Amino acid sequence: MQILVEPVLSHAKAQAGRHLNELNDFVHFPSISADPKHSVDLKNCAMWLAGHLRRIGLENVNIVPTQRHPIVFAEWQHAPGKPTVLIYGHYDVQPVDPISEWLSSPFEPAVRGQDLYGRGASDDKGQMFCHVKALEAYLRTTGRLPVNVKCLFEGEEEIGSPNLGPFLARNKDTLAADVAVISDTRILAPNRPAITYSLRGALSLELEVRGPEHDLHSGSFGGAVHNPLQALCEIIAGLHDATGRVTIPAFYDRVRPQSAEERGYMARVGPTNGQILSAAQVQMGWGEHGYTLYERTTMRPALTVNGIFGGYQGPGPKAIIPAKAKAKMNFRLVCDQDPHETNRLFRRHIARIAPPTLRTAVRTHFAAKPALINRQHPTTRIAAIAYEKGFGAMPVFIRSGGTIPAAGLFQDVLAVPTVLMGFALPDDRMHAPNEKFHLPNFFNGIATSIWFLTEVANAGRRNQQEVRMSSAAA
Amino acid sequence: MQILVEPVLSHAKAQAGRHLNELNDFVHFPSISADPKHSVDLKNCAMWLAGHLRRIGLENVNIVPTQRHPIVFAEWQHAPGKPTVLIYGHYDVQPVDPISEWLSSPFEPAVRGQDLYGRGASDDKGQMFCHVKALEAYLRTTGRLPVNVKCLFEGEEEIGSPNLGPFLARNKDTLAADVAVISDTRILAPNRPAITYSLRGALSLELEVRGPEHDLHSGSFGGAVHNPLQALCEIIAGLHDATGRVTIPAFYDRVRPQSAEERGYMARVGPTNGQILSAAQVQMGWGEHGYTLYERTTMRPALTVNGIFGGYQGPGPKAIIPAKAKAKMNFRLVCDQDPHETNRLFRRHIARIAPPTLRTAVRTHFAAKPALINRQHPTTRIAAIAYEKGFGAMPVFIRSGGTIPAAGLFQDVLAVPTVLMGFALPDDRMHAPNEKFHLPNFFNGIATSIWFLTEVANAGRRNQQEVRMSSAAA
Repeated sequence: MQILVEPVLSHAKAQAGRHLNELNDFVHFPSISADPKHSVDLKNCAMWLAGHLRRIGLENVNIVPTQRHPIVFAEWQHAPGKPTVLIYGHYDVQPVDPISEWLSSPFEPAVRGQDLYGRGASDDKGQMFCHVKALEAYLRTTGRLPVNVKCLFEGEEEIGSPNLGPFLARNKDTLAADVAVISDTRILAPNRPAITYSLRGALSLELEVRGPEHDLHSGSFGGAVHNPLQALCEIIAGLHDATGRVTIPAFYDRVRPQSAEERGYMARVGPTNGQILSAAQVQMGWGEHGYTLYERTTMRPALTVNGIFGGYQGPGPKAIIPAKAKAKMNFRLVCDQDPHETNRLFRRHIARIAPPTLRTAVRTHFAAKPALINRQHPTTRIAAIAYEKGFGAMPVFIRSGGTIPAAGLFQDVLAVPTVLMGFALPDDRMHAPNEKFHLPNFFNGIATSIWFLTEVANAGRRNQQEVRMSSAAA
Repeated sequence: MQILVEPVLSHAKAQAGRHLNELNDFVHFPSISADPKHSVDLKNCAMWLAGHLRRIGLENVNIVPTQRHPIVFAEWQHAPGKPTVLIYGHYDVQPVDPISEWLSSPFEPAVRGQDLYGRGASDDKGQMFCHVKALEAYLRTTGRLPVNVKCLFEGEEEIGSPNLGPFLARNKDTLAADVAVISDTRILAPNRPAITYSLRGALSLELEVRGPEHDLHSGSFGGAVHNPLQALCEIIAGLHDATGRVTIPAFYDRVRPQSAEERGYMARVGPTNGQILSAAQVQMGWGEHGYTLYERTTMRPALTVNGIFGGYQGPGPKAIIPAKAKAKMNFRLVCDQDPHETNRLFRRHIARIAPPTLRTAVRTHFAAKPALINRQHPTTRIAAIAYEKGFGAMPVFIRSGGTIPAAGLFQDVLAVPTVLMGFALPDDRMHAPNEKFHLPNFFNGIATSIWFLTEVANAGRRNQQEVRMSSAAA
């Protein structure tokens, strides 16, 4: 049976206005997974999403509770003999601080120019919605999908997907698929699509330093008592050396060295130092000597301090030695580092360097493994064709410095080949104030997803066997 | 005329319950001078205080507006030929954070055991109220005071008394006095009164480090962009060396060396290391090698970090490189350091060590000079007699690590000899949660003030000339 894709694409094009309105509704939910006081918003967002999936014609739609935020599952299984595509996305978003820097309210989505502004617009509501609208366009015009589809949309990606692994392990059969697609990454520019083949892992921690039982008067005790804030600064300052390397012993031991060929390819297709600085809006780079900025952010691990708090933060002065100080920290890890091992190395190091004048405590927020995708897999070729048709340009292959726990878990637990097909731009401000989604990418993303489903079906017809065999070997 | 002091003391004793209730009312005002949103509370507190001074019989009561918080002035000038005593205090208080650590609300004063708990209970509402109640006791029982009195109660001490110097300069004649008394310091124990003869100066600053224009995703940019929080930590960590000394060039140049005799006296009468650690509730000391903890906190300068803020401080993780980070810092300076010079040295040092990857900015909150009181002045002997009668023990002479801008200004601008007659205890938690005032010290403080006024009058009769001449030479 020949698949007629033009009516599907035309339908999606004609419905662009409605699609944008629906994305607005989706972004409207303040589904901040890190903040317990938003639990109800995540539930409401999951219910809205489940209702939406039901309305467009998906079946077996389920809201699966977890220890924190629910997983939304849906499927369509009426294409016997065709491959099954597992579509992953996350409906949770990052916190919005500093709120004062938003030009429009983060949960009152606003279109300015060709961009939709709002928390989650690109990370990941907008990107996952490309697939939802592609499925809808197919179902509305042809009454069916060209392949079998399973949707898995979680609400805990931004807190490290703590309940996704156990969910996958419990539901291996239900989730069995020939290929998984995740759209939660970047392309280089609106006309330069990209398939991501490498993700960094992550380890999020909190380090606390405790000193006196209560805040002390800095006049009475200044000079005689070790200040927890100062000690925290001393510890953090000592975690990097003058060449930008992390000083934790054995930290780099498992970092996989990259070949000259690989580094050459990265230099040819990846962003230049100038492009990375321009996306970050900073004048100068920083970091580990001997590597380009693209290498530092993708094939080399990194340690960043995400927040420090301690002592007085109100207006004016307050002359105290605070009782305690805390820092939130985030490691980005590369193959073959293991976040659980890094966690142990960090804790051992802190215990060794902590001054005897104070007490320290480490709390682990989450750990996710790095992931490396096999670029030679046929799925990748299919994704490339879809991009070429959806964006009018062949994609390049890039590494991402970010982390998607699902990518590693799909490999490890489901053994399903995964393709990272992103639609966000480097300056979409994921995690930052004024996050946006470039609307041409939204519409091209929908078209790309339509082509992807189509080409998987075509490839399935041509060489079902090839896809399945590669999948089994992955 | 012989002064009959016993009825005055008896009156004060009989009225102890009412005095405590009135102190409760006084502490009830949340007069936090650092926080602009409490401006009205400072105004209300000043009005309450002025009304109270009028009611007890003081005259010419004035609420003098300044650029921020008003000064309350009152006087009683009907003792011709007698010396004039200038009584200084401050009705403003420190901020209350961390509010969660208070066992009772900071502005709902509560008596537990022999202590009154509340912000400002000892610093300085309770201590200054000792003098107010002493004046009242005299006026109610004898209808007059044994000396001429001027009261100067300001609302900006905790923010460095920015408007006190100009006020003193404009009102030199109105404020002319033979002796000034300030009760805003500590004694060693309820039965070990102390006269403070040395105060440290202070310099309060805010250091800001700015990096990217907005927060960045730590996955995308971690490892390639200098983190303002990390840079702030590096700067702060570098401000002390391994021997606990401040590393700012020329910082110690003007620090007055102390003689072996002086250090010997301090070792004999001052608190031991153990007592200071016990008051701070910490196990181990810290700081500049070669000095006792008492010396480190009084005759040596110190630099403390009072608060750091930057990045994400909410619950859970947030993987960002923050756009900026700030630290509040406080120097304590000793004779003959000049806070304005230290300010210049700090700014020059920061400009020199700041990394080229980031921008820094320094904001000065306040600067106050250190003060050294002449222990040989006759006023000191009078204060010692008053303490002996009020507390039943001769006072020792101690240095304080704290700062009272008024003390330096009284010397510099008014040229009036000043005595620092404190009633607070080392564990009264000035500036910290659960600040308290030991009630026996409140009542003994009132008696001590009654005796001080009496003895100044007696000394004035005996050797008016001596006091006046010393005053002129101070």
